[in-house]
Amino acid sequence: MQKMELESFSPVSTVAVCGGTHGNELTGVYVVREMQKQKVEKVGLTSVDVVLTNPRAVALGRRYAEMDLNRCFSDAHLSSPLTESSVYEVRRAQELNAQLGPKGSEAAVDLLIDLHNTTANMGVCLLFYSIDWLTLHIYRYIKNKMSPLPVRAIDVGVPISDAYSLEAVGKHGFAIEVGPQPNGVLRADIFNMMKKTVDLTMDWIQEFNSGCTFEAGEVEVFTVVKSVDYPRDQTGEITATIHPELQDNDFKLLRRGDPVFLSFTGETVEHEGDELHPFFVNECAYYEKKIAFHLGQKTTFQLPPVCMKKN
Amino acid sequence: MQKMELESFSPVSTVAVCGGTHGNELTGVYVVREMQKQKVEKVGLTSVDVVLTNPRAVALGRRYAEMDLNRCFSDAHLSSPLTESSVYEVRRAQELNAQLGPKGSEAAVDLLIDLHNTTANMGVCLLFYSIDWLTLHIYRYIKNKMSPLPVRAIDVGVPISDAYSLEAVGKHGFAIEVGPQPNGVLRADIFNMMKKTVDLTMDWIQEFNSGCTFEAGEVEVFTVVKSVDYPRDQTGEITATIHPELQDNDFKLLRRGDPVFLSFTGETVEHEGDELHPFFVNECAYYEKKIAFHLGQKTTFQLPPVCMKKN
Repeated sequence: MQKMELESFSPVSTVAVCGGTHGNELTGVYVVREMQKQKVEKVGLTSVDVVLTNPRAVALGRRYAEMDLNRCFSDAHLSSPLTESSVYEVRRAQELNAQLGPKGSEAAVDLLIDLHNTTANMGVCLLFYSIDWLTLHIYRYIKNKMSPLPVRAIDVGVPISDAYSLEAVGKHGFAIEVGPQPNGVLRADIFNMMKKTVDLTMDWIQEFNSGCTFEAGEVEVFTVVKSVDYPRDQTGEITATIHPELQDNDFKLLRRGDPVFLSFTGETVEHEGDELHPFFVNECAYYEKKIAFHLGQKTTFQLPPVCMKKN
Repeated sequence: MQKMELESFSPVSTVAVCGGTHGNELTGVYVVREMQKQKVEKVGLTSVDVVLTNPRAVALGRRYAEMDLNRCFSDAHLSSPLTESSVYEVRRAQELNAQLGPKGSEAAVDLLIDLHNTTANMGVCLLFYSIDWLTLHIYRYIKNKMSPLPVRAIDVGVPISDAYSLEAVGKHGFAIEVGPQPNGVLRADIFNMMKKTVDLTMDWIQEFNSGCTFEAGEVEVFTVVKSVDYPRDQTGEITATIHPELQDNDFKLLRRGDPVFLSFTGETVEHEGDELHPFFVNECAYYEKKIAFHLGQKTTFQLPPVCMKKN
């Protein structure tokens, strides 16, 4: 393995911790409320913004009021003129972009983390838009500290210019997904995993800002390759569920011939095509998006050592 | 044990199988749709009505459109005059009562079963309004056939005159609750358990109608004694989740001092008062009803032998 050059980054002086982007994913809502109650505004020398991002959806107990807020941070939505009839979430996206961004500008928060839940059995996952050495080092730190609990990284594979989700507003950013948890339900185990992941992120930042160098190393990342829809009849109705052998087995390599769906009349549908890793298996919110699961490829990245840039 | 007299009941000539009473409890929705596709209208000599009860809530993917349909079958709601501004679910309750009832009349279906899901780890449960030898025999039959899978009976403890839920419209009736399953999600394991429970109910009816006598025996029933709310702050916000030792442990006897809640700041709240059995632990829909779990008492009933009444 070739020796990699030290990469340096500006200190992480501002962090935003966001929850409630999807109003029925309750862990983030309550982590944020708890941090607000504790009046967390600074950790070490880093100032921290704690934001409940979609209060209307939280009050409704739904993913969103009018449209998915986490699809509203594209350049098109952020620059669309607001009118009386503008969708609530587009308005809210522009407010959040003004508060925490603007996206792509020097004024944006250094790091934005957005807290999500999934009904899939995915444990703790960090979701990235683009590969970024700083956030992958945070990932590696969290993974090592939380071991043997599995922590995984997912590269959503959307170029930052097309990025439509909240974490793209920060200079660096990622979403933390923890599951399985039903929408509208709060589980202690999931709450504790989420809280621990946020705390470890803050710990890493403190170490980084104090001048530590984080050594070179390897990390594995799952990159989304494609999505698979449920089998459907002519009217568009689904005709099968996720097969019991796939259900709850996110990240386990799918080989050709492995069962993926079980129809309501008892027939098994097998996996065809490339051997890939499934995740977001049976995620509630993806029914309306016509996604039964994503398939991804596992890639190993060589991380360069990183440290803080000295002025 | 004293010998019990044979009880006889009229044949079960009409059955209604209902699903989608809560639009986001998907197992019943898809069991009903599948039975409608298969054009199930008769099993043996028993005519079967298969009804999607709250299509508007199903289309919305929510528990209900305007109010909980399964609280609309009280005598007050069923007799309230309909106007332009009547709530959708009250209107629907009256339509269903006309189609499957009227409640308390000779015209009502002989047996009404209503299919539900819970986010609690309750396996298969049959919910009853009042003790009824015929339906308890069906319960015992299902329990024996599905063993070692646990099947339990819950007596909701509401007198039939106050009964507000759909199954009260039939001459006999019960709800089938299967979980854990997130709202808005369909799991193959839960689907198969629900389908099997419905099929066994039909099998029992065929045996009963053909003249079989079902022998005397014992069954255990959990009777709701009280409900427990989450700890809350002055503003009414919850301050704790179900404790990990209680989560997923529905029906395990709670003793004094057992942990029941874990606060967001890490404190454990212990069970006080009588030793009872918890169920519907962390049921999603009960957050708005301010119920963290129900507590019930386990009672053993001596079932008399039953057979069909001969004319």
